[in-house]
Amino acid sequence: MDVFEALYTTRAMRRVKEDSIPDDVIKSIMDSAIRAPSGSNRQDWKFLVVTDKKTREELADIYRETWDYYVKSFYNDSEDLGASSLKNKDEIETVKRISNSASWLAENYHKVPLLVLAFSRNDPTGSSIYPAIWNLMLAARGHGVGTCLTTVMNFKTEDVYKVLNVPSDKGWTLNATITAGYPLGKWGVAARKPVEEVTYLNKWGESPDWNLTEPLWNY
Amino acid sequence: MDVFEALYTTRAMRRVKEDSIPDDVIKSIMDSAIRAPSGSNRQDWKFLVVTDKKTREELADIYRETWDYYVKSFYNDSEDLGASSLKNKDEIETVKRISNSASWLAENYHKVPLLVLAFSRNDPTGSSIYPAIWNLMLAARGHGVGTCLTTVMNFKTEDVYKVLNVPSDKGWTLNATITAGYPLGKWGVAARKPVEEVTYLNKWGESPDWNLTEPLWNY
Repeated sequence: MDVFEALYTTRAMRRVKEDSIPDDVIKSIMDSAIRAPSGSNRQDWKFLVVTDKKTREELADIYRETWDYYVKSFYNDSEDLGASSLKNKDEIETVKRISNSASWLAENYHKVPLLVLAFSRNDPTGSSIYPAIWNLMLAARGHGVGTCLTTVMNFKTEDVYKVLNVPSDKGWTLNATITAGYPLGKWGVAARKPVEEVTYLNKWGESPDWNLTEPLWNY
Repeated sequence: MDVFEALYTTRAMRRVKEDSIPDDVIKSIMDSAIRAPSGSNRQDWKFLVVTDKKTREELADIYRETWDYYVKSFYNDSEDLGASSLKNKDEIETVKRISNSASWLAENYHKVPLLVLAFSRNDPTGSSIYPAIWNLMLAARGHGVGTCLTTVMNFKTEDVYKVLNVPSDKGWTLNATITAGYPLGKWGVAARKPVEEVTYLNKWGESPDWNLTEPLWNY
């Protein structure tokens, strides 16, 4: 797969099949993840690959609890993540789509065949761990595997650490959990604001005037 | 370029030529960056592309100051970033190589043809901005452009904001500066710990026993 196809079409893919992912694919995904750079090449990271059914079910229970907590705390228990309180039509649709897909993930978490938990130390800004996490997700895309980056389980690390035997006194922080499986839906280029809305040239506020209204790569 | 070639060979490339990067390549790099996912697809980010010579020179002065401050504060003014105080031979070589390359960058910063500064809001963990930053660097690799992620200018954001007219009251945080240019050196797979040293299967401490001693993709 061409690198630009991967960069343009790796989107949050929450709805996945139960089919397990072959070991060779998992190896390739993980070996790609650790090729990312990290501050001073310290590689102060650990990745916990979870395929075992019982462990996935235990994590799914924690995920559902934290997801409920998240919806209650940040969205006033609004199941559509506040979509109904928005005014802009596009925004309402985006938030509704995300909320449906996120609810699907919470309900079906135990069926997701592969979970990878990323841990790091001495990385307060995320600059060392996220290139590796994103490498992992792009490599998965290269193999036709859909992934989604979730951080909600970070609210209950104590429970997560208990299930996975993670030591709590070695300075490891759980950064994110990546869910992975073969997609139920289709690949495509996700909706984004045009690059010119978020890019300035030489000084803040100066548009680059590129006249780019469509993605430069199309599926 | 194959996606795995990009994932395996995108390494910190500090030594670059002065040759400017064509506009079409810059557009493609930036349009790839914004394809990355962000929390709730908020895209609460701005990218400042700097090609103007005078602006690059002003930033270079700030970079050198912050680099000196960094070496003084974190490495006791040790120019080799503490390499001489290490014991492990491999570690000494790694740190020396990084310190030589980083010193080169500090001295030649004004000659680097392209700088991209990434700003974000509401992203305390870096999970929303770093996939976009890493997309940018992988897209550059796809075009044969070398990049390096640096965060040292974050120590002097006030000066940086003044040069670039960045408003200080809108909640924007400077996350990182990416230097970019055509490489003076060669591409290759960077040295990393074997994947099995940093990956566990199902429970913390359990090796996946993959017997992977060499990278799964080779240049």
